[in-house]
Amino acid sequence: MARIAIDLHGGDFGPSILIPSSFQFFQDNPHHHGVLVGQSKSFRSFVRQCPQNIEFIDANPLGDEASRPSRLLRKTGTSSIETCFRMLEMQDVDTLVSAEHTGVLLALISKYGQLHALINRPVLASWLPGLNKSTLMLDLGASYFANHEQLLAYTAIGIGIKKSQTNSPAVGLLNLGTEQFKGPPELRLADAALHKWSDLNYKGFIEASSVFKGDLDVIVTDGFTGNSVIKSAEGALDLTLSILKNKLNHGVFSRLLAFWLKQQLKSSLKKLDPRLSNGALVCGSNLQVIKSHGNARGKAFYTAIERAASAHSGQYTTSIWVQLDKLFDELA
Amino acid sequence: MARIAIDLHGGDFGPSILIPSSFQFFQDNPHHHGVLVGQSKSFRSFVRQCPQNIEFIDANPLGDEASRPSRLLRKTGTSSIETCFRMLEMQDVDTLVSAEHTGVLLALISKYGQLHALINRPVLASWLPGLNKSTLMLDLGASYFANHEQLLAYTAIGIGIKKSQTNSPAVGLLNLGTEQFKGPPELRLADAALHKWSDLNYKGFIEASSVFKGDLDVIVTDGFTGNSVIKSAEGALDLTLSILKNKLNHGVFSRLLAFWLKQQLKSSLKKLDPRLSNGALVCGSNLQVIKSHGNARGKAFYTAIERAASAHSGQYTTSIWVQLDKLFDELA
Repeated sequence: MARIAIDLHGGDFGPSILIPSSFQFFQDNPHHHGVLVGQSKSFRSFVRQCPQNIEFIDANPLGDEASRPSRLLRKTGTSSIETCFRMLEMQDVDTLVSAEHTGVLLALISKYGQLHALINRPVLASWLPGLNKSTLMLDLGASYFANHEQLLAYTAIGIGIKKSQTNSPAVGLLNLGTEQFKGPPELRLADAALHKWSDLNYKGFIEASSVFKGDLDVIVTDGFTGNSVIKSAEGALDLTLSILKNKLNHGVFSRLLAFWLKQQLKSSLKKLDPRLSNGALVCGSNLQVIKSHGNARGKAFYTAIERAASAHSGQYTTSIWVQLDKLFDELA
Repeated sequence: MARIAIDLHGGDFGPSILIPSSFQFFQDNPHHHGVLVGQSKSFRSFVRQCPQNIEFIDANPLGDEASRPSRLLRKTGTSSIETCFRMLEMQDVDTLVSAEHTGVLLALISKYGQLHALINRPVLASWLPGLNKSTLMLDLGASYFANHEQLLAYTAIGIGIKKSQTNSPAVGLLNLGTEQFKGPPELRLADAALHKWSDLNYKGFIEASSVFKGDLDVIVTDGFTGNSVIKSAEGALDLTLSILKNKLNHGVFSRLLAFWLKQQLKSSLKKLDPRLSNGALVCGSNLQVIKSHGNARGKAFYTAIERAASAHSGQYTTSIWVQLDKLFDELA
């Protein structure tokens, strides 16, 4: 059983959109317990249909601090997201789902949690769709740059998360080419260290073109690149779907033939959309936080809550910490 | 009329594949002149069918230097690619197409050419497919990192190339988000400078998800990110095509319905493939060099020769130099 806090005010949509997704999740999963945090006037109309395993807590939306998260560090706030973090800190909940800005989540993790000694800044990890299996990729933009020790820490985090599913996760390091002499110094240093890392199923450098092949368990990269790779794939997919749409709407013959096919293709291609694989783990601290996309709604927000539940049952936070400790000893 | 040198030994395939593409191009474009450089035994069997506007020059393939390009700097080589560069230097040809490794091309540009004072290292620029129009993106991997002055130089190069087609090219700078406060310092410095740049149609930060929208003329980024963004899109497209293929081969009903549709979709989607938009301009020196993909053949290699011809007729090299001079004065 996971006790899951849900911040109703992060993201683009707010409570009226996030509450129905949450209700659905907790109805489907009666063994989990939900704590929905938001303005009482926003959830009042929902209380009557509320599943028994959900409680509401009244708190205000975050104000201007969203654009200047450092302000959050100075005084105790009463916002919904800060209320959630206080519950996490007090262990009143096990895990938290929020669509709040990354900057806000990072600030509050440093305020209420504790980072592992190897981590300067939390790391964003998420699951990419792939042909064979889904791949965990990190960092996805919590930092802009990663030196070689941070890249090693990301690897430890990735292994920590994947250990619950597979004994010896296959790891790749993203670079411009697969040859060992390629790439900037921090990547070549990390590559050399990973080759020596005992018990690691390390596959060496990989290129961004094979990110979606699904033959790896963990892909390690700096946040700027990781974020760009995912968004580029989203853009390419959007372009593909709009070309499909144009093509299939052109001419009566085509429209008739295509009607049935269109549905089929659309749903297959939609599966690839990184946006529907919603819910990134904010890793490297003692608090378990899942960041939902700001524009996630319906099934996508539901998926983020699912991630939170499986992160708790998989004991990701502890498992990550164990791997980081191991790396700490290796580097000492 | 452009005098175009073609290095027959760069890339994965060699003369027997590259010669037919070249023949086709010069047959279709009898006003251009081709100089094909490679081992005589490799082109001997082709000489009889050779179009009149093509001549062959005998030279050896490059040896081990491909993996250690610095060796090329020490002594005068007799390889096909170095022969091409000597012709470029002596102005016996106007432009060069080669599928040689980027490192080799960069070394030989510094040996036989002259870089503009603002450029430390040549810059790779290429055209991305898009819904509305094709977009020029740079750098695509000649450098790993770019400081803010390099990003400004990339902008000047992009404008230089696009000026021949459009009076006021729309420029975007790739970042993790569109807000001005986002991103690493070099991007924020470049953004601030570009906003002040007179006569520039600057659209601010853009995210990798809008790279393929085709609403910009020039997208500026560092080489590591640019390379990753393109390869990620290639990977996403491959995945999409293989899902399409699986879906459409599944079941008799589907196969019958889909036969005609499949051809249509495939050709439309293929158009998006960055690989078919082959031929990157290696910019920032007084020599005009087009880099073909190592795995380009047939229509793709043909496209690279087309790029060389239009780079010459568009006077890209001079136009880039003019824009870099302007920037030099602006920064002085």
